[in-house]
This record gives sequence, C-alpha cells and structure tokens, in this order.
Amino acid sequence: MIDQRRLPREQVFVTCGTYQEMADAITTMVIRGAPAIGVAAAMGVALGIQQGADFDTVCSTLAATRPTAVNLFWAIDRMKTLRATLNGASRETIVLRMIEESQQIRLEDIAICKAIGKHGASLVPDGRTVLTHCNAGALATAGYGTALGVIRAAVEAGKKIDVFADETRPFLQGARLTAWELQQDHIPTTLITDNMAGHFLRSGRIGCVVVGADRIAANGDVANKIGTYSVAVLAKENGVPFYVAAPVSTFDLTLESGDQIPIEQRAASEVTEMFGVPVAPENIAVQNPAFDITPSRYVTAIICEHGVARAPFKQSLGALAGGAKKVNA
Amino acid sequence: MIDQRRLPREQVFVTCGTYQEMADAITTMVIRGAPAIGVAAAMGVALGIQQGADFDTVCSTLAATRPTAVNLFWAIDRMKTLRATLNGASRETIVLRMIEESQQIRLEDIAICKAIGKHGASLVPDGRTVLTHCNAGALATAGYGTALGVIRAAVEAGKKIDVFADETRPFLQGARLTAWELQQDHIPTTLITDNMAGHFLRSGRIGCVVVGADRIAANGDVANKIGTYSVAVLAKENGVPFYVAAPVSTFDLTLESGDQIPIEQRAASEVTEMFGVPVAPENIAVQNPAFDITPSRYVTAIICEHGVARAPFKQSLGALAGGAKKVNA
Repeated sequence: MIDQRRLPREQVFVTCGTYQEMADAITTMVIRGAPAIGVAAAMGVALGIQQGADFDTVCSTLAATRPTAVNLFWAIDRMKTLRATLNGASRETIVLRMIEESQQIRLEDIAICKAIGKHGASLVPDGRTVLTHCNAGALATAGYGTALGVIRAAVEAGKKIDVFADETRPFLQGARLTAWELQQDHIPTTLITDNMAGHFLRSGRIGCVVVGADRIAANGDVANKIGTYSVAVLAKENGVPFYVAAPVSTFDLTLESGDQIPIEQRAASEVTEMFGVPVAPENIAVQNPAFDITPSRYVTAIICEHGVARAPFKQSLGALAGGAKKVNA
Repeated sequence: MIDQRRLPREQVFVTCGTYQEMADAITTMVIRGAPAIGVAAAMGVALGIQQGADFDTVCSTLAATRPTAVNLFWAIDRMKTLRATLNGASRETIVLRMIEESQQIRLEDIAICKAIGKHGASLVPDGRTVLTHCNAGALATAGYGTALGVIRAAVEAGKKIDVFADETRPFLQGARLTAWELQQDHIPTTLITDNMAGHFLRSGRIGCVVVGADRIAANGDVANKIGTYSVAVLAKENGVPFYVAAPVSTFDLTLESGDQIPIEQRAASEVTEMFGVPVAPENIAVQNPAFDITPSRYVTAIICEHGVARAPFKQSLGALAGGAKKVNA
C-alpha cells in the first residue's frame, strides 16, 4: 500500500507481511478511509490465518485499531463468517479461501465505487463547483473513490465542473491526498482551508457538496471526518445540496442514531505539530476528535451502490441495504 | 514591536526606523490585528514626518498595505486631520505633535480595550466555555485585546470560564498567538482546529462565542478573519450567542452593508506551505481570502467602548459611534 502520511511529497510503498503490521498501518494512518481500511482489515485477517496465529486474537487486534469506521468491523465479520463455514477444511484450503475472500472484497469495492459514481453523477450540477471535505477518493477505497467517484463519474459523463477541496486539518487529507488525486486526473481543483468553505458556500459558486462517510446510522445520521457537520450546516444555510457517498458496508442499521457512533480521539501532536514543526505553544491543551456526526436533517441524499436514498432515511436506507435499485429518488 | 510571524517559537522584536519599514511590517504581518495596525499606521505617519518625506506619499504608502481593516484608514485620517491644523507651525512642532498623537492613539486603544472588556464581561456565561477565532488579543491591539479583553475582564470579575481557541488557518493566529497569550495569563485554554468548532458548538459546552472585527458596516455586517462567518452560522444553529468586540474605530458607517467591504486576497503559499514545508502538491490552485463577511442576522451583539449594540444595528451602532453609553442593551 502507498504510505498516505508521506503524500504528496513522497510516493513510498509499505508492505505488510503480518497481521500485526497491518493493524499498525491502520492505527498510524499509513492507510485510511473507511472502505480502504475495511479491505486492509480483511487482508490482515488473511495474513493472520496464513501466519497460523490465533483467529480470535487476529480479529480482535484488527478490530481494535480504529473505532469509528464501521467498514472495518463489517470486513472482519465477513471474514469470520467465511471462516466458520470452513471448519473441518484443510489448513491449505482455509488459507487459500481467506486470501481469495479478501481479494474479492477489494475487487467488489472498486465495482461498488463505480456504481456509486454512476448513481451520483446525475446529481452534480453541470457548470458549477463541487466542494468536498477530507479524502473519499481512490486512496480511501480500493480505487476510484466514493465522493471522488461521484466527481470522476460526473466528469466522465461530460459535465464541466471544478472542485474546491477543504485542506482538512489536522491530517490534511484534502491538501495532501484529494488535491493530489484530482491533479493527477486533470480535474481542475482549488485548495482552500477548512474555514473558507462557508465563505464560498455563501458566494453562490458551489453547486453541491459531496463527501464520504465512516458510518451511517439507521436514521441517516452520518459520521465522517471532523468538519463535515460544519460544512453540512453551512450548505443547508445557503441552499446548497449536501450529498454523502458511501457503500452499504458503511451503513450501521443496528444504531438508531448518530449519537451512538463512537468518535475516535487522536493524539494532540496531530494538531500542535506539522511534519514535526511545532505550531502552538508547548503544553497547550488540545481536543482532537477525528470525526463528527452530521444529523440527517442536513443531508440532502445518501448515494450508495444500489441507488440514492432520501428522507425518510429509516425507510430508504433499509430498502437500499437490501439491494433495492432506487428509493425516493 | 514583537514579530508575530515567529511566535510562539521565538519572541523577536522588530524596530521600524522609517515609514517604509512600518508599511512593510504591516503588509507582511509582522504586526496584525485591526486596532494594532491602526496604531502602527499612525506611528508610521509620524515616522514619515520625522524623515521629512512627502506627506501624501507617506499616507498613501501606509494606506496601501492592507485593504480590509478600517482602523488603518481611520488612524491615517486622524493623523491627516491633525497635520492640517499644523500648517504654519515649525517643523519641530509638527514632528513633536505627530509623534504625540500616535502615542495618544496607542494609549487610547488600551483604555478602549479595557472599556470593551468591562461592557462585555457581563455577557459571558459563568461556568461555561468561550469559543474564540483568530487573535483579537493584546497582540492585535495596543494591549489587553478586544475579544480577549472581554475574556480577561470576565476572568477578572471572578467568572469561572475556559477558552476554546480555533487554530485559524492559514496564518494560525489562534494556535500561535491566542493560545500563547492566554497561556501566559493562566486562563485555561484548549486548542482546536477550525473545523472542530461546529462539533463543539453542537456539544453544548460552549456558552458564547466572542470574536474581534476588522470592519463593521452600518447595518451590523462584520468583516473579520476568514472562518468567522462559519462560526457565526454554527453558533446560531446551536443557540449559542455570538458576540463581536471592537472599538468604534472599526465601525465604517459610510458603508450600508458588508457587501461593500473589500476582502484582501493573500498569497497561495500561506495555504500550501507551513513554515516553509510544503503541505500540498506543487502547482495546485489556491484561494486565500483573508477575511469573510458575517451578515448581522448572525450577530447577537456588538461590544464597543461605549456599550453594547443589538439589532437593529443601524440605530444602535450609530448611537454608540456618537458616544452613547448603552443602546438596546
């Protein structure tokens, strides 16, 4: 995998040979993005099986890496379900099938992103600017991206759009990853700091907002990168549609609302240092929640691989999770 | 003056010996903050007089440094008005009077900040957290601060409050300056990234927001550091009072609304580099408006040295600018 901490300055690849290395890569954000860490966790489970490690230990170690993105748990559960069907099989067969399954999850994720792009492209207003927050691109998935998949599909459909990318402090996924991805695709992209998003939403140039998600509750509340809630409120205040693009594996229909989604707190040093350079006085207190919750009343629609869900989300998400082709669209 | 670009890592003092050096210090943000650059511009005019430079050139050079904060033009106009009364006086007298006037502006500014603090302190809810954006502190004024003056006065009045400081990208005035000032005053302060403000406003822990201003139009629209508009919208959405603290010299009652306030655009490198380290891909397009406009409907009250103005601002600001002690309070 590409080491996302070092982009765009260096393109360095990291190879994980053990499940412990994979867990460490997820925890330290060598790899990040809800769908991508789902794929990584599945591969971590396969690595653990190959190592001959205790299966429960492998799964619990990988599950303990990050708390918010549900795709991680979804992928581990899928690997567990397969493993349970292989009781009695030879070790060789079990290893082979688990590796195949993790590869299958990866391939499915690319196809899912393409389907999300297809469903979302029609929602993007032609001739306008799309605002996005964080990185829900190829780097955050197995390829193509969710929010950036919608943008890519809109461009492929011939729409003349450009993108405003929030830099997304503290980890700078927007500045470092989204700007880099879109630049490589020659999609016109303008970098702004997070606190400029409101100003440009008020200016009238933003046609829609598209972001990814780390977990979506049954009522349509969305956990996503810190700052998403602010963008959603500012979009609604200015009459700009706010779209969330995410695979069904991001839905957590066991949770009634976003209040039940655990929010990861990360190290203060992410805020007080940039590339090792201090940007704040020593010993200053810091809060560093990595995600926030956007109540569903700010969400215009949720785009998944099976179609587009609109309010009331309890019904529309349930139907799409079951595979319905289009609900309330 | 302290070089604000190098805080909090180094406390370095810069001495401006000419009006050109003063203009450069304002342009490059060695000194920033609307009241502080007003004082600096007045001193720059006095320096120019002392140098024997052409008066109109001195004034126009200093006026061309930064476009948004009206205190700059207010201070230059005050020096011009004085100069006009000194026609026929000796060169020695003119130099002396202009220096005295610039010192007087500095001393008045400290007294004004203290008065703002006194009027604002009663508005701060006891036992809660105050959110502030950018730096409207001692560094942004001749001393004590406007928004931070309100916070300091509330603490001096015995209120048990703590402060959340937005880091304020791209120049990091919150992380570098506000956190540093409040830490020195032993006022409990927590640093957050700008995109976390909405999350904490929603959480219920923020009792009020207090910010400074760079220019306030007759209808109460406020130009202030980029990101202020977003905080104001998020405060209103969550029922949190949003206060603006600024001296009357920040009022520009010649402008009907904030739409007429010029917004400074600054260099892309402020966004793409931090302390010389690149944080974005090369050649990425950037927007870098240094300020935004907060429409007055999001402003709970404006606190100045003469009292507290509330809607309708056209009346209340006009009365306070004239020196009324308290309007609609």
